[in-house]
Amino acid sequence: MAQFPHDKPHILGRREVARSRLFAVEELELRFSNGAERTFERLQGSDQGAVMIIAMPDPEHVLLIREYAAGFDDYVLTLPKGLVDPGEDIVGAANRELMEECGVGAHTIEPLVELSLAPNYMRHRMQVMLASDLYDQRLPGDEPEPLIVETHAIEAIPALLARDDFHEARAIAALYIARDKLRDEQQRLQLW
Amino acid sequence: MAQFPHDKPHILGRREVARSRLFAVEELELRFSNGAERTFERLQGSDQGAVMIIAMPDPEHVLLIREYAAGFDDYVLTLPKGLVDPGEDIVGAANRELMEECGVGAHTIEPLVELSLAPNYMRHRMQVMLASDLYDQRLPGDEPEPLIVETHAIEAIPALLARDDFHEARAIAALYIARDKLRDEQQRLQLW
Repeated sequence: MAQFPHDKPHILGRREVARSRLFAVEELELRFSNGAERTFERLQGSDQGAVMIIAMPDPEHVLLIREYAAGFDDYVLTLPKGLVDPGEDIVGAANRELMEECGVGAHTIEPLVELSLAPNYMRHRMQVMLASDLYDQRLPGDEPEPLIVETHAIEAIPALLARDDFHEARAIAALYIARDKLRDEQQRLQLW
Repeated sequence: MAQFPHDKPHILGRREVARSRLFAVEELELRFSNGAERTFERLQGSDQGAVMIIAMPDPEHVLLIREYAAGFDDYVLTLPKGLVDPGEDIVGAANRELMEECGVGAHTIEPLVELSLAPNYMRHRMQVMLASDLYDQRLPGDEPEPLIVETHAIEAIPALLARDDFHEARAIAALYIARDKLRDEQQRLQLW
């Protein structure tokens, strides 16, 4: 019989098996609670944290960026995002990324949800922030070319999904969560 | 002035800079249409394709699995998924993964959406399939321990998001897309 919940596997050994400038691969030797042993690999990314921003110029619209994505060798439509710099907090990082990628800052920035990318083999987590009360403010970023900023209705997710260049799971999950939260708030307002 | 859309950057060079059993890192030298040059890294995964399955035992519920995720060194709740084996089609892969991970097959399997993980530095795409008309059928998989299968209401996404172990962006995006599709179909039925 399977235990419920399983006890976590015991880590028998771990060692780095590959490293590049940005990535490191760690090999993990595991013994599961039933005695089964496996060797898994996982990616070690930066542990500094990452942030993704849903910036709303008004209560119905959201800013999306169109940028070159090297993994696909093509342009994709997605939410602004980036790593948290050393010494920065999440709100500061969100505001800086917004200024660099969209040319706006936000007076109000609040946490929405924390998402993982591929927990089976990546430690990566990303904090999604909801930004409103926007104002014009541009900071120079490290982008090789200016990003194209598009404004879309947050209710238009189905139309976005019909596009070829909108497929990043984190952005899709974040937009649905924000949309439902806004719908709930609207409904609560109408009830009162 | 930025061109709209930008021309794709020119790939000046590419070389493998790290490799492990599962992962390879490729360095890409790029020249953007404005002349800016950058060196990017991207992960090369398997190109065989991957599949994630929303399996519905009835029109209101979905099967989730609870499995050990090495990236987090913890158990996570997510959708069944896996790689497409050589010679397999997407439907066959979805049905096999369901049998291995959940102990069920599906008489009906249809494509829902294709999601990417991190297009900036990964080529990875995953095809999400909607499976229904389920029947009991178990296949031995390569899991080190039996996965725990849970049945959840597809309308209960907010309750899932409140849990500590449910955070994988691909699963969240897939569930929202399926839920909205089912809501739309229900609404259309009621209109007729």
